[in-house]
Amino acid sequence: MAQKPSIPKGTRDFNPEEVAKRNYIFNTIKSKFERFGFMPIETPSFENSDTLMGKYGEEGDRLIFKILNSGDYLSKADQKAYDDKDSNKLTSSISEKALRYDLTVPFARYVVQHQNEIEFPFKRYQMQPVWRADRPQKGRFREFYQCDADVVGSNSLWQEVELVQLYDEVFTALKLEGATIKINNRKILSGIAEVIGASDKLIDFTIALDKLDKIGEEKVKEEMLSKGISPEGIEKLQPLFTLSGDFGTQVESLNSILSTSEEGKKGIEELQFINTAISELGLKSAILQLDVTLARGLNYYTGAIFEVSAPNVAMGSIGGGGRYDDLTGIFGMKNMSGVGISFGLDRIYLVLEELELFPETITKSTEVLFINFGEKEALYSLKAIKTLRENGINAELYPDNAKMKKQMNYANKRNIPFVIIVGEQEIENNLFALKNMITGEQQNVNLEQVVKKFS
Amino acid sequence: MAQKPSIPKGTRDFNPEEVAKRNYIFNTIKSKFERFGFMPIETPSFENSDTLMGKYGEEGDRLIFKILNSGDYLSKADQKAYDDKDSNKLTSSISEKALRYDLTVPFARYVVQHQNEIEFPFKRYQMQPVWRADRPQKGRFREFYQCDADVVGSNSLWQEVELVQLYDEVFTALKLEGATIKINNRKILSGIAEVIGASDKLIDFTIALDKLDKIGEEKVKEEMLSKGISPEGIEKLQPLFTLSGDFGTQVESLNSILSTSEEGKKGIEELQFINTAISELGLKSAILQLDVTLARGLNYYTGAIFEVSAPNVAMGSIGGGGRYDDLTGIFGMKNMSGVGISFGLDRIYLVLEELELFPETITKSTEVLFINFGEKEALYSLKAIKTLRENGINAELYPDNAKMKKQMNYANKRNIPFVIIVGEQEIENNLFALKNMITGEQQNVNLEQVVKKFS
Repeated sequence: MAQKPSIPKGTRDFNPEEVAKRNYIFNTIKSKFERFGFMPIETPSFENSDTLMGKYGEEGDRLIFKILNSGDYLSKADQKAYDDKDSNKLTSSISEKALRYDLTVPFARYVVQHQNEIEFPFKRYQMQPVWRADRPQKGRFREFYQCDADVVGSNSLWQEVELVQLYDEVFTALKLEGATIKINNRKILSGIAEVIGASDKLIDFTIALDKLDKIGEEKVKEEMLSKGISPEGIEKLQPLFTLSGDFGTQVESLNSILSTSEEGKKGIEELQFINTAISELGLKSAILQLDVTLARGLNYYTGAIFEVSAPNVAMGSIGGGGRYDDLTGIFGMKNMSGVGISFGLDRIYLVLEELELFPETITKSTEVLFINFGEKEALYSLKAIKTLRENGINAELYPDNAKMKKQMNYANKRNIPFVIIVGEQEIENNLFALKNMITGEQQNVNLEQVVKKFS
Repeated sequence: MAQKPSIPKGTRDFNPEEVAKRNYIFNTIKSKFERFGFMPIETPSFENSDTLMGKYGEEGDRLIFKILNSGDYLSKADQKAYDDKDSNKLTSSISEKALRYDLTVPFARYVVQHQNEIEFPFKRYQMQPVWRADRPQKGRFREFYQCDADVVGSNSLWQEVELVQLYDEVFTALKLEGATIKINNRKILSGIAEVIGASDKLIDFTIALDKLDKIGEEKVKEEMLSKGISPEGIEKLQPLFTLSGDFGTQVESLNSILSTSEEGKKGIEELQFINTAISELGLKSAILQLDVTLARGLNYYTGAIFEVSAPNVAMGSIGGGGRYDDLTGIFGMKNMSGVGISFGLDRIYLVLEELELFPETITKSTEVLFINFGEKEALYSLKAIKTLRENGINAELYPDNAKMKKQMNYANKRNIPFVIIVGEQEIENNLFALKNMITGEQQNVNLEQVVKKFS
């Protein structure tokens, strides 16, 4: 193979620095998840195709990566589809397994399969890669991680309260202070649609409303009209377009719009419960903001809807979630209410990079490199390195007796802040020449002093 | 879907306890890897098929999971293979990508692709899942993790020395004291084959020799004869069959057998270098043992060969590795010597389980559960929980105002060691009733005392 090898488009290699930075984000999220009582599970990378197919809509089905059966897979191919050369119809007869498309459906499958071993309410978190055969573009990959925390088996609104706190805790710990946590409620959207006589057009209505920020009031109204929402209905929406101010003020306007809708009033009540609790408990740095246009994932959310955006940088949402009343229904287990949030690792990474919020320490792995001058010196060095490692210090020996300059270069390029030079004289006097790679300073010290220096 | 969902055979769900135990092993290995100066990289789960195919032999090619192309994949199908319904020949025209089969080939691909960004010698570690379409059986899965540490770009034997130390460090840290690190050298095997006039039968010779433990001397000799090794040659092997004793004694016998083979003598020299250094440096709990019958992965190892077995339990090897002089040659980059070791996560897990070596603390996640008696009590509790969490304590509120017994049950089943009960009286007096779930003891304490208790 003469050509330089490459990787499939939409996938990525991560070098040591990138892995360290990604792990910093993972570990921060993970430790907060556990602080809040969430427990980790892991599911297989591939599932039986019928677990995944039909759960994400037609578009989703197309974007699921299918795994070819092993062996003589054509022997079981659907004959008609084969004769017709119909890719779409042939697939299920030559592929039984497919790569995970998200973490929610495998989680639902897990809950149903293991229902007898699980204590409900079940607070689980999961951080694993998912795969989508999407067209790759900036910030969109074919393999990427999802980080989800969900609770199933409880209707309590305290979960929503805790999830708002959890977002606040994670982003504050990542030094991303001042994130905006937008909140809405599916019941409010349903209530509004009801009030304007467009209950059967809920999806069209919310898709149009969701664009308010981008295309403005007039265009939103045009779109609603074109979808068959009546002018009188749209008239009733007027207060919605000018909704602004704090939580309380917005709730007042909503109360007046939704006075005739039971469902709408229930939605307002839920929002108020969450907002009051959060006001009492306080947030460290995030801001909780009511956003009636927020309609994310409306297909399955039934109560609260969340979305988080980063401060000081245009990046789209870095997290989202909500409540879904029927997570496990697709697998035949009814009445399992769930609520969860997820973190967008790749975007959080880009935000931290742009705002220079990664701590410097995380990319520093080896603290001191011992220069290698030959067998005797190397053995003397390895004895010292052993002691350093026992004291929790990351130390290493340059493996070859190469030119001094090459070894120093290696330390520089790898960002190792100190080297230790050991020659005959040092061995004789039981000393180590410790050199600071930034200042160039060098001093003779004994082993105890080296340990102290790096502890 | 009425049927209970399931997962593909050979794959596994991991529950919170299993994830915690697996992470304990991962984190121990990872921290030792970094202590020794290894840096993490990650590669995509799937590679272009031509990166993987042909690298693992015919059997390997069959066991690689192939991913079906997206869209109308049949439109580009090889027409002849299609007409012949030849699964094997059709695959490459309908599948461009395949799941990673091990971490070594992707690592070689990574080194070649990123050679200009890498500082050599490059010490990398990688812990990621791999997939094989093997027949599942006890302890053999279709998805499993590999944990590899390799150095490329240096011939120095100090690497081998450090890798022996690394094995010792990891297994000692896992409390798996007394692991046996078997070592051999490909050059010794080649030397022996040369001496007995069977250089062209090296593989057959080593496969037979490898069975000495299992089938005994006579059967090994029979097998060698049947493979065409001469009776005179086998005669010369006699000292090998009775090889025993410490490193030094074994080396003496080898010296006498290999006196006429330059390569063999080189192998002995290398072994002696490693053994002397390790004797000087000392091991914490592992035992380094010469095993001339060790032939693991002979197809690619060119120098040292390692294999580790656990103490006090029959489990097969829990780790292995060796030196390969041409890691990246398959991708056109010559003369890159590498040496590495790997850890068998699943077997280590089983060993720790069997010997009851998992620390109890790792499966304890939430330290205290607050019983929920209603809105007012829940809010009072969440304020306290916030303080606990700020002090690094994992605490949670039972989300619903359910029956006391149900909530206590939940704490028990989840192994949460303490609960806190908050009623009106406690709120009035700013106190918390702290109950030990094991002893049943209960006492009234203030918030400061709760924090102190769990810190």
